[in-house]
Amino acid sequence: MTRTIVASATREIVIGFDQPFCVIGERINPTGRKKLAAEMQAGNFETVIKDALEQAAAGATMLDINAGVTAVDPNATEPGLLVQTLEIVQGLVDLPLAIDSSVTAAIEAGLKVAKGRPLVNSVTGEEEKLEAILPLVKKYNVPVVAISNDETGISMDPDVRFAVAKKIVERAMDHGIKPEDVVVDPLVMPIGALGDAGRQVFALLRRLREELKVNTTCGLSNISFGLPHRHGINAGFIPMVIGAGMTSAIMNPCRPQEMEAVRAANVLNGTDANCSNWIMTYRDHKPSEGGGATAAAAQAPAAGGGGRRGGRAARAGSGAASQ
Amino acid sequence: MTRTIVASATREIVIGFDQPFCVIGERINPTGRKKLAAEMQAGNFETVIKDALEQAAAGATMLDINAGVTAVDPNATEPGLLVQTLEIVQGLVDLPLAIDSSVTAAIEAGLKVAKGRPLVNSVTGEEEKLEAILPLVKKYNVPVVAISNDETGISMDPDVRFAVAKKIVERAMDHGIKPEDVVVDPLVMPIGALGDAGRQVFALLRRLREELKVNTTCGLSNISFGLPHRHGINAGFIPMVIGAGMTSAIMNPCRPQEMEAVRAANVLNGTDANCSNWIMTYRDHKPSEGGGATAAAAQAPAAGGGGRRGGRAARAGSGAASQ
Repeated sequence: MTRTIVASATREIVIGFDQPFCVIGERINPTGRKKLAAEMQAGNFETVIKDALEQAAAGATMLDINAGVTAVDPNATEPGLLVQTLEIVQGLVDLPLAIDSSVTAAIEAGLKVAKGRPLVNSVTGEEEKLEAILPLVKKYNVPVVAISNDETGISMDPDVRFAVAKKIVERAMDHGIKPEDVVVDPLVMPIGALGDAGRQVFALLRRLREELKVNTTCGLSNISFGLPHRHGINAGFIPMVIGAGMTSAIMNPCRPQEMEAVRAANVLNGTDANCSNWIMTYRDHKPSEGGGATAAAAQAPAAGGGGRRGGRAARAGSGAASQ
Repeated sequence: MTRTIVASATREIVIGFDQPFCVIGERINPTGRKKLAAEMQAGNFETVIKDALEQAAAGATMLDINAGVTAVDPNATEPGLLVQTLEIVQGLVDLPLAIDSSVTAAIEAGLKVAKGRPLVNSVTGEEEKLEAILPLVKKYNVPVVAISNDETGISMDPDVRFAVAKKIVERAMDHGIKPEDVVVDPLVMPIGALGDAGRQVFALLRRLREELKVNTTCGLSNISFGLPHRHGINAGFIPMVIGAGMTSAIMNPCRPQEMEAVRAANVLNGTDANCSNWIMTYRDHKPSEGGGATAAAAQAPAAGGGGRRGGRAARAGSGAASQ
């Protein structure tokens, strides 16, 4: 069984097929958040602190930390800023961290200060990246996210994306890194632009799990880019990728609808033992939608194990109850 | 490609792997609804009419019709009452119907009056049932739901449930019924009682699709029986069964959370062309949960194709946008 171990100073988390889905909080990332970028550049970490605490409270398993505040000479600013951000966050919450940067020097600087066993985010199939990142991953004995694109960009052919992932896993092995320390991101395309994006990724996830036997992740909200009511698409996507074998995602844990989908999928995937996390979270849940009468009536047939006649729901319900 | 055709007087619907998920409205069923049972026995169809109209308005693809109001001599009352109910509903809404009864005479009476091509619900693997129902299914040239239990009850072993389904499909072929006219119900157990219920049914659905190549259905809400916030479990289950190959379910279309999950899964499964049903339904959707600021910020990274730096989400987003 594939087990990717990440850890904070004191807490170890396993990413794996038999584990609850690993929610990697995406919020601490100035990409596309101008206000946050300006704050961080000015040495103001108020939003970082708020985002760290909120994501932890919302149930994130890990936190992604990105300090890419500028496209202008990131090599000069990013290593120091990433170190500062990592140190603030790990002083605040006891969750494993992902060190997220496209600047190699920033990743190395982050690896020097991060406690426990952080996840490096990321390497790609590009030669330059492979040779820059994999030696660091080996040196610090940490897991790494492998994004399945290379010098030619992101292929629209899932077979090519699988081949790129395979190449990265093999190259990692050449560097003495175990496949269980490579978490593959098969790349999720917006379904609004590419109608086949869902089925592509489900098929890729199955192959990554069955053939490469690796853990997987993705930037989850990409799937709904450009569509109305994105949270509804995201919340439908989560159970589908979990069912297809995905074991983690970089996502916003502060969205109740998405987190509810994660918790439900854990129950259904058998990784929430005795449904205890579900029951603890929702035991006092009050239905907010639809009429109470409708809700009560809808539940009645399935609860009809005590009914005398053989309605479908009653049959199945009583059958199971007798086990 | 497996195509199960059902029809009302004027509208034909295809159930199939490449079709939007078929939502069979479960509401018109007195099992466990004492008030409805009493009304129907008294010849009062007000609730039936209300449930038919509401389910149609909520987006049901078909309606299940059950008139099992009593356990005392159902053979005497059910055929007439089922006919009456079917006639009222098909005079009211233009949706294909499922004739749902455990009384053979009621099913035959229903088949005589139902317009179009109704679905018979159901046959099981029990010898007596097979020999009573299959000749009717052949005679009236209609599809049938095949529930995968037999004289020994519901097996907890999914291999046995598969074998029962296979037996029913083979027996149907002996009667001259095509496999595409058999819609298998693999039987869904409550996950609160059987932690493996989800994975069992996902594996079964895959086998039914790949080996028997049949369409499938289930009594959906059974999965959440006994748990708090059942709609959340149901809404997570729907995308997972659709991802595993299920093509229809008997469920309550009047629950917005469940129907949203169906619509999202159709988008993600590639059966909502150009996301047009999703966009039409949710284009004016206002987020009701969480803070507006959080929602806006969460969407920013994925929408960051215009950002200059290579954040993960921005990379994937811009890659896809360039296709």
